[in-house]
Amino acid sequence: MTRDDARALDAADPLRSFRDSFVLPEGVIYLDGNSLGVLPRETIARQQAVVAHEWGERLIRSWNEAGWIDAPARVGAKIARLIGAKPHEVIVADSTSVNLFKLLVAAARLSDRPSLLSEAGNFHTDLHIASGAAELTGLRLDVAPRADIEARIGEDTNLLLLTHVHYKTADRFDMASVTARAKAAGALTLWDLSHSAGAVPLRLNEDGAELAVGCGYKYLNGGPGAPAFLYVAEHLQERLVSPLRGWMGHAAPFDFTDDYTPAPGVARFLAGTPPVLSLAALESGIDAFDGVSMDALWEKSQSLFTLFASEMAARCPALPCISPRDPHARGSHISFRHPHAFEICQALIEAQVIGDFRAPDVVRFGLTPLYLGYEDVWRAVNICADIMRTERWREPRFAVRGKVT
Amino acid sequence: MTRDDARALDAADPLRSFRDSFVLPEGVIYLDGNSLGVLPRETIARQQAVVAHEWGERLIRSWNEAGWIDAPARVGAKIARLIGAKPHEVIVADSTSVNLFKLLVAAARLSDRPSLLSEAGNFHTDLHIASGAAELTGLRLDVAPRADIEARIGEDTNLLLLTHVHYKTADRFDMASVTARAKAAGALTLWDLSHSAGAVPLRLNEDGAELAVGCGYKYLNGGPGAPAFLYVAEHLQERLVSPLRGWMGHAAPFDFTDDYTPAPGVARFLAGTPPVLSLAALESGIDAFDGVSMDALWEKSQSLFTLFASEMAARCPALPCISPRDPHARGSHISFRHPHAFEICQALIEAQVIGDFRAPDVVRFGLTPLYLGYEDVWRAVNICADIMRTERWREPRFAVRGKVT
Repeated sequence: MTRDDARALDAADPLRSFRDSFVLPEGVIYLDGNSLGVLPRETIARQQAVVAHEWGERLIRSWNEAGWIDAPARVGAKIARLIGAKPHEVIVADSTSVNLFKLLVAAARLSDRPSLLSEAGNFHTDLHIASGAAELTGLRLDVAPRADIEARIGEDTNLLLLTHVHYKTADRFDMASVTARAKAAGALTLWDLSHSAGAVPLRLNEDGAELAVGCGYKYLNGGPGAPAFLYVAEHLQERLVSPLRGWMGHAAPFDFTDDYTPAPGVARFLAGTPPVLSLAALESGIDAFDGVSMDALWEKSQSLFTLFASEMAARCPALPCISPRDPHARGSHISFRHPHAFEICQALIEAQVIGDFRAPDVVRFGLTPLYLGYEDVWRAVNICADIMRTERWREPRFAVRGKVT
Repeated sequence: MTRDDARALDAADPLRSFRDSFVLPEGVIYLDGNSLGVLPRETIARQQAVVAHEWGERLIRSWNEAGWIDAPARVGAKIARLIGAKPHEVIVADSTSVNLFKLLVAAARLSDRPSLLSEAGNFHTDLHIASGAAELTGLRLDVAPRADIEARIGEDTNLLLLTHVHYKTADRFDMASVTARAKAAGALTLWDLSHSAGAVPLRLNEDGAELAVGCGYKYLNGGPGAPAFLYVAEHLQERLVSPLRGWMGHAAPFDFTDDYTPAPGVARFLAGTPPVLSLAALESGIDAFDGVSMDALWEKSQSLFTLFASEMAARCPALPCISPRDPHARGSHISFRHPHAFEICQALIEAQVIGDFRAPDVVRFGLTPLYLGYEDVWRAVNICADIMRTERWREPRFAVRGKVT
């Protein structure tokens, strides 16, 4: 494939026009939108209006006037469209970690089975939060290798906590079949959609998903540390009570009563006052998906992957791809293994190709079909090939640790 | 007191120049800075820089370059100065509700005493969070009237949860003596500083405080739903483990290990990724206190209170003040009781005097010495007197419920 071939693919890309809705820094090839999504142009003006007008001029009145009070449900409903859920099944609140905790503790109490089952090497915050939740609810946290998970689901399984798309390898679980397997064994499944929502096709209702959480600042372009979301299937909502009984999740938050009555529906999983500025940016990020078909996004993700994988195989054979070739079994990033992944990643960043290193030996590149083009991928591989050919990554400055990406 | 007298007080006010650092909407007398603080002018430009430059242009690199990763500790240290704590004893994280939960659960596990003691009529989120935490840790939540609290502290008291300044009445506990009383009985005290920090003098170290949480969007002017803070006295930090074990509180968040090792010090109480935009606004809000002496603030709060109380007593006798006259026993707001408090509050808001209603019968006005003047207070009372004299509050539109302030 030549650069011109890649350009031709961009010219024929039905999603190409969406690229103009985002700020893409000059000269940078940004392959880290699965860690921090880019800034939608619309967010700049919107954020200014929230700060200067809604907060500055209207002050406390904006809780009603500007709809701050409804934002967690309103933005949740917008996310619902992207993940195949009903509008009232999703709410925006807190961080992914805190939401995981709320749902794990609430769900664990529905049965007296002893085991909370998760995957070894799951994103570490999931395992740490799970260990805290297990300790408090008297569950045992069982961690099994990925290949053994399904076999380990049994009569002792209370809850299954899985990340839909693995943050490192991009391995994707089959949500429908795993959920059904757990259900058949009498267990609930909680899906972490952090590396799926906004990129991979999700049909939570259709796949029988009962509980899920997800991240606002990756593919949803909600800005650094954007609030997270959580999903509770309609039929479960009234049976769950949040361990974090904040006033925003109360049935009547402005009655100021000493007694706790959970709000109807998923709103009971709100805790404290939401960070309105960050929440407004998340809403802009999600609005940037207006008019985008999730299937078209996924189509393009696959084409970007194919180009990336085949060019890397041809030009950077020292970096084997560890992400699944089968599109049904993967998410929207592509990862490569190398003993010097850290140094290679640093050399790429210096050359303005921004991916990220995941310990101990992985270089990871996010494929964000809304704003990433084929020529970007072609150029990234070209630069990577140059770094590998010249062995520039061996220069000592690339080995300096202490970066956070 | 005449309007000119009030103006003379403003002219002589040593804090008067700080008023220009804030956006104060034309025509509005804002007495709700204890619910949502006003917008510091500096925040507008700063927020734009965070969005357009740090996020938009520098993207993931800003975690290091722009110091996003250090913001929870950096902003915590700035808050420490305002509350009489050491810089490494305070961290910014999550919401007040979530922080309450973390500290309650962590502290409850230090002893096997059965009682978590709090005040009846405490801010409801405190009681609701406490009931959730008590349930999970096997504690009993005991709620006693304010007057009985000290007497109820005993050998069964594990933890005492108190709000330093009462959200409704402005009643203030004597932090040093209550903490000492609890300590003598072998119990820990957790203080909620939501209605104190940034207005009332706080000397956490000097007063022997061990645990505290507080709110970023009231007197600290951090913006709607700004992240909250928490304080853990140095000597307790290594003994507490957060039930919310998110990756940001891990000793080595970027090692991605399955095992949880809490970060040293108060940073272990970080959970997920912080909402960077809201956190940046909080930092601007706190920076607006640069060069302000907390004692001077408190001096002015007292003068504003005295003026408010005496003018109301003279001109609105139907609205008795329910806040303590003794400045050592109160916070920085002033509250009045009336069976039609709701309607009176609505009539005031229509006349651009913004205070708030607290169910069932309280009108509350925040006294924010950084930007509130004596003429503001004089005018507010004048308008209130007019509403009471004409009985304008009886107009049916003021009885319409459904507002959120």
